[in-house]
Amino acid sequence: MARVINTIERTPSEIASAFAGLGVATTHEAQERSGLLHSRLQPRQSDAAIAGTAVTCEVAPGDNWMIHVALEQAQPGDILVVTPTSPCDDGYFGDLLATSAMARGVRGLVIDAGVRDVAILRSMGFPVWSKAVSAQGTVKETLANVQVPIVCGGQLITPGDVIVADDDGICVVRREDAAAVLEAGLRREAAEEEKRALYAQGLLSLDVVNGMRTRLEAKGLQYLR
Amino acid sequence: MARVINTIERTPSEIASAFAGLGVATTHEAQERSGLLHSRLQPRQSDAAIAGTAVTCEVAPGDNWMIHVALEQAQPGDILVVTPTSPCDDGYFGDLLATSAMARGVRGLVIDAGVRDVAILRSMGFPVWSKAVSAQGTVKETLANVQVPIVCGGQLITPGDVIVADDDGICVVRREDAAAVLEAGLRREAAEEEKRALYAQGLLSLDVVNGMRTRLEAKGLQYLR
Amino acid sequence: MARVINTIERTPSEIASAFAGLGVATTHEAQERSGLLHSRLQPRQSDAAIAGTAVTCEVAPGDNWMIHVALEQAQPGDILVVTPTSPCDDGYFGDLLATSAMARGVRGLVIDAGVRDVAILRSMGFPVWSKAVSAQGTVKETLANVQVPIVCGGQLITPGDVIVADDDGICVVRREDAAAVLEAGLRREAAEEEKRALYAQGLLSLDVVNGMRTRLEAKGLQYLR
Amino acid sequence: MARVINTIERTPSEIASAFAGLGVATTHEAQERSGLLHSRLQPRQSDAAIAGTAVTCEVAPGDNWMIHVALEQAQPGDILVVTPTSPCDDGYFGDLLATSAMARGVRGLVIDAGVRDVAILRSMGFPVWSKAVSAQGTVKETLANVQVPIVCGGQLITPGDVIVADDDGICVVRREDAAAVLEAGLRREAAEEEKRALYAQGLLSLDVVNGMRTRLEAKGLQYLR
Amino acid sequence: MARVINTIERTPSEIASAFAGLGVATTHEAQERSGLLHSRLQPRQSDAAIAGTAVTCEVAPGDNWMIHVALEQAQPGDILVVTPTSPCDDGYFGDLLATSAMARGVRGLVIDAGVRDVAILRSMGFPVWSKAVSAQGTVKETLANVQVPIVCGGQLITPGDVIVADDDGICVVRREDAAAVLEAGLRREAAEEEKRALYAQGLLSLDVVNGMRTRLEAKGLQYLR
Amino acid sequence: MARVINTIERTPSEIASAFAGLGVATTHEAQERSGLLHSRLQPRQSDAAIAGTAVTCEVAPGDNWMIHVALEQAQPGDILVVTPTSPCDDGYFGDLLATSAMARGVRGLVIDAGVRDVAILRSMGFPVWSKAVSAQGTVKETLANVQVPIVCGGQLITPGDVIVADDDGICVVRREDAAAVLEAGLRREAAEEEKRALYAQGLLSLDVVNGMRTRLEAKGLQYLR
Repeated sequence: MARVINTIERTPSEIASAFAGLGVATTHEAQERSGLLHSRLQPRQSDAAIAGTAVTCEVAPGDNWMIHVALEQAQPGDILVVTPTSPCDDGYFGDLLATSAMARGVRGLVIDAGVRDVAILRSMGFPVWSKAVSAQGTVKETLANVQVPIVCGGQLITPGDVIVADDDGICVVRREDAAAVLEAGLRREAAEEEKRALYAQGLLSLDVVNGMRTRLEAKGLQYLR
Repeated sequence: MARVINTIERTPSEIASAFAGLGVATTHEAQERSGLLHSRLQPRQSDAAIAGTAVTCEVAPGDNWMIHVALEQAQPGDILVVTPTSPCDDGYFGDLLATSAMARGVRGLVIDAGVRDVAILRSMGFPVWSKAVSAQGTVKETLANVQVPIVCGGQLITPGDVIVADDDGICVVRREDAAAVLEAGLRREAAEEEKRALYAQGLLSLDVVNGMRTRLEAKGLQYLR
Repeated sequence: MARVINTIERTPSEIASAFAGLGVATTHEAQERSGLLHSRLQPRQSDAAIAGTAVTCEVAPGDNWMIHVALEQAQPGDILVVTPTSPCDDGYFGDLLATSAMARGVRGLVIDAGVRDVAILRSMGFPVWSKAVSAQGTVKETLANVQVPIVCGGQLITPGDVIVADDDGICVVRREDAAAVLEAGLRREAAEEEKRALYAQGLLSLDVVNGMRTRLEAKGLQYLR
Repeated sequence: MARVINTIERTPSEIASAFAGLGVATTHEAQERSGLLHSRLQPRQSDAAIAGTAVTCEVAPGDNWMIHVALEQAQPGDILVVTPTSPCDDGYFGDLLATSAMARGVRGLVIDAGVRDVAILRSMGFPVWSKAVSAQGTVKETLANVQVPIVCGGQLITPGDVIVADDDGICVVRREDAAAVLEAGLRREAAEEEKRALYAQGLLSLDVVNGMRTRLEAKGLQYLR
Repeated sequence: MARVINTIERTPSEIASAFAGLGVATTHEAQERSGLLHSRLQPRQSDAAIAGTAVTCEVAPGDNWMIHVALEQAQPGDILVVTPTSPCDDGYFGDLLATSAMARGVRGLVIDAGVRDVAILRSMGFPVWSKAVSAQGTVKETLANVQVPIVCGGQLITPGDVIVADDDGICVVRREDAAAVLEAGLRREAAEEEKRALYAQGLLSLDVVNGMRTRLEAKGLQYLR
Repeated sequence: MARVINTIERTPSEIASAFAGLGVATTHEAQERSGLLHSRLQPRQSDAAIAGTAVTCEVAPGDNWMIHVALEQAQPGDILVVTPTSPCDDGYFGDLLATSAMARGVRGLVIDAGVRDVAILRSMGFPVWSKAVSAQGTVKETLANVQVPIVCGGQLITPGDVIVADDDGICVVRREDAAAVLEAGLRREAAEEEKRALYAQGLLSLDVVNGMRTRLEAKGLQYLR
């Protein structure tokens, strides 16, 4: 009963791509601190920051067959999101699959399991966020679902949602919320820029942020010698 | 009943700063293997090595308000040391707070919780040792104590103590012990330099260190074919 | 009853060394997915890839005495493999021991425990795979066995076996299997090279790998809108 | 923008309750190995086995306010399912809340965070599955959503879904699938009963399960002396 | 330079003992949510609840010598608190030491390391809270400090402080605060008793706790269909 | 190339069985602190203590087929020892396999992976030591080796070796060492019995164990006020 859904709706490309500039922390704040994947998924390179639309893929433990199936569904600008049906740290993805993914325009991989060939992946410039690094290979025996809603890193991810990933982690933005969240994020970024300038001059947030000293006093903070 | 202690005694700056050259491993040995923080606090950059005086700060889970308060207490040469009142991996500290900290001369951050904006922190040159990386932001609702003795990474840290941090971890040196530990560390370093030269020539520690072969034999070590 | 075995048989050097080019993932596949050490042993540098013959060493918890003894047994082309007799994360190995090891031609260290001076080790070019980084030093009080079969990272390792280590982890190849595994690995690598070229052109594994689409259909995979 | 959804559809009570007899392992198999919550959620008592309909509740880190709100939404036969908006092990739930929950007919608690008063909870007969046990209390400062779809233990849970929990863990069954899964589970149980009788007599599964020996041989299993 | 401090001041016995009735959760609340040891220290039995005065003891990794020294310092009503100078899970304490401890009136053990003979300890009725269970024995080679302030489970513990331990964990109360905290705890317990009676009748905390509904509304909670 | 070795040599039954009385801690000491399996393998019941001869079994991740094959090799007095070829926490073993195992005289299960139906296993009196509890079932697709030397819990285990398991963990004794270790263990037990009697009267180990006070003084322990 495993299935591949052929026709999914993607977040418009120019919206999805714009999140790379915002980054994960700002995106997460802009949608009211929701959508963050668990921090067990870690970047396997430094300073990569990407955003794109999710291609989702379930895999059986120790079996990467469905990643091959998922790549056929991928389009340029997509990010591959893979979750095992039971916890597994095996190395599901290596340089061969990365070669294929890059050839198809996939921007990166988010996987709640293991990857391998990480030195080659870095040198290829294909960014990966994974739960583990493991040379342990996988078989191709068991089917699972592709392009269905999945839970990855503790978050529900629907095909076509926006995935944002950088050194701070990974955040998902629902397709229907993407435009609004992007706008809120850009506003937030502008406001932070102002604060940053003041802080760089040595001003304290206690004096820059309205009412902070008053609230501290009201809550009863005491300054003692 | 949360309080900020305004007047603390700091280890003299020239003593505190000199520990950066010794590093954590030598400092730790020089004070009889004490003062090491738990290894769950990891560097979020490579090759940073700092030393300075502790500004201590408690924070409630998911709440970074007191870090703002602590920055006002900081002086050039300080290192900010933050501990949550219950375990929490949220991202308490990002690029805005780092901008403010650098403007005030703070040398780095040690936090038994999470940080975010780590790529930016690295590019700013503000070194951080943390338990986690997480884009999960925090609120500003709950008070806690600043510049009081705290336990961070399993060690008691009193404001004004020396903090030494590098790629091996973090070590605290009590203010009253700092001068003596520094001297012991410098002696130790000189002794190691001699050994290093001999080992580099291919001599064995079994032959360089007095009595090592004899002690091995006395304990009953057997060499067999 | 601790003992050092003086005479062990090593895998021929040209065979052992050739595995560095294959890497861990290919080696592991070439010997039917066996021999992989647990992923808790992680590289403490990036992009190192080594292979050599194992010198094995047990150590007591918090005691690195036997590493000094093991270094005398080491020959150029060896890799030092250390396992504690009960789990311990202390920093057993630092820059002094690394200086000695490099002087004797040792290619790297694999240790199911902690190391220290990691920034110096990286600058020296001495690669290390360890379970932990810790500045916590060790004593020299308790004997243990050197150059006997040990379990390290959950794998049985016999002195003279081949150790392969890179950013993906560590793999052991039995001395008696080494020549055959090397040959199988080289064949595998050639086959992968062909696939890589096809994938880089945008062909799908579903079309490149014989019978993959047929098997998916036979197992019942459904494509739905 | 936090909200409480007043009107949700529950799985019919007689269906939801019947899963307690099946247990988690059989339920999970009966719905094709899906719906299992992560094993970090562990029973805090022995030999409890419950099933009921989910009341869902988000909570802020270190803040249990919304559990109070959720209890008002609970009906007899419900199971309270709580997830923090960022990982937290504090003790969100203790004997007072359990008293209130039992008075309202709630059958148990599933929480991806900590609980306290566990000895009292056991003596009260109120079963709990949690990620942690911690005496660390919580505040009542931050709103979150109640009776909305949440991710708990890595699974999507919609209010009114069936929750099954026993010493093996926790499984969720979608409301719309519940009747079919129950029927499949009962059939499965009957089939297992037959096998159990044969195994108890000493027959081997190799001989009881059709074709197992043939398949082993076909795959190439060799019996050697 | 290891030392044993012969003369310490203990919290008066009737005060220390009275905390057993309060339990850890109430004690922790009564002293403003401070003093809780890390939850990695877990009870190795069910339904034990003790309180007494701390005898503190450092131990080297894999070495339990100082526990023997500490037992001589113990008096009836004490609780033994042990912390390793570097993390270690070995089994430091078993039935022989428990026999000796019970003969001297020690009420239990709190150790940030491992224990063994746990089935016998349970049958003897000697309660233990530990980080691990391990049959791995220890040596008697290295000195450490006894009856000095230590950090155990992340909390500073001074000899003579009150230790409270039950199925929820462990809490330390400073000697000088003990009388006041006990009184606050008893008041708290009385207040909880009232609430418990109301909740048991089915009343909601939303209606019992003053102003809770108003605050929820003020913060903007919305009830939707 | 998977294989089942039909003919293995077992430790004589009366020797293997006698270790149950010694227990894990004493056995481990009696063979010089070797042979202990990693503490991640935990008892899933209380107060079981067994000993017997190992039947060894490898399994693929998420695949329990070989356990069925291994049961045919089992004889009365055996203990089943199972290890996955890559780390996996799935529930490989439940009440059906336990029924079959008990019918064949198997005394228990040691598995470096997950089990399920734990409440039923406890009620059946079939003791299990496992790395995890999980309702996640497994498939029957992949072959692996049975009755060959394996590494389980970090220890090398050869078919026919003695396995001792109780609430403290699990220990393996080589077949060829079993008689000698048993004798050493019985001697050790007798010696401990004497000490226990003295300690129960309130004597201190410092006075009972020869030379302990002298050694403490020689190492420099100081008693201070």
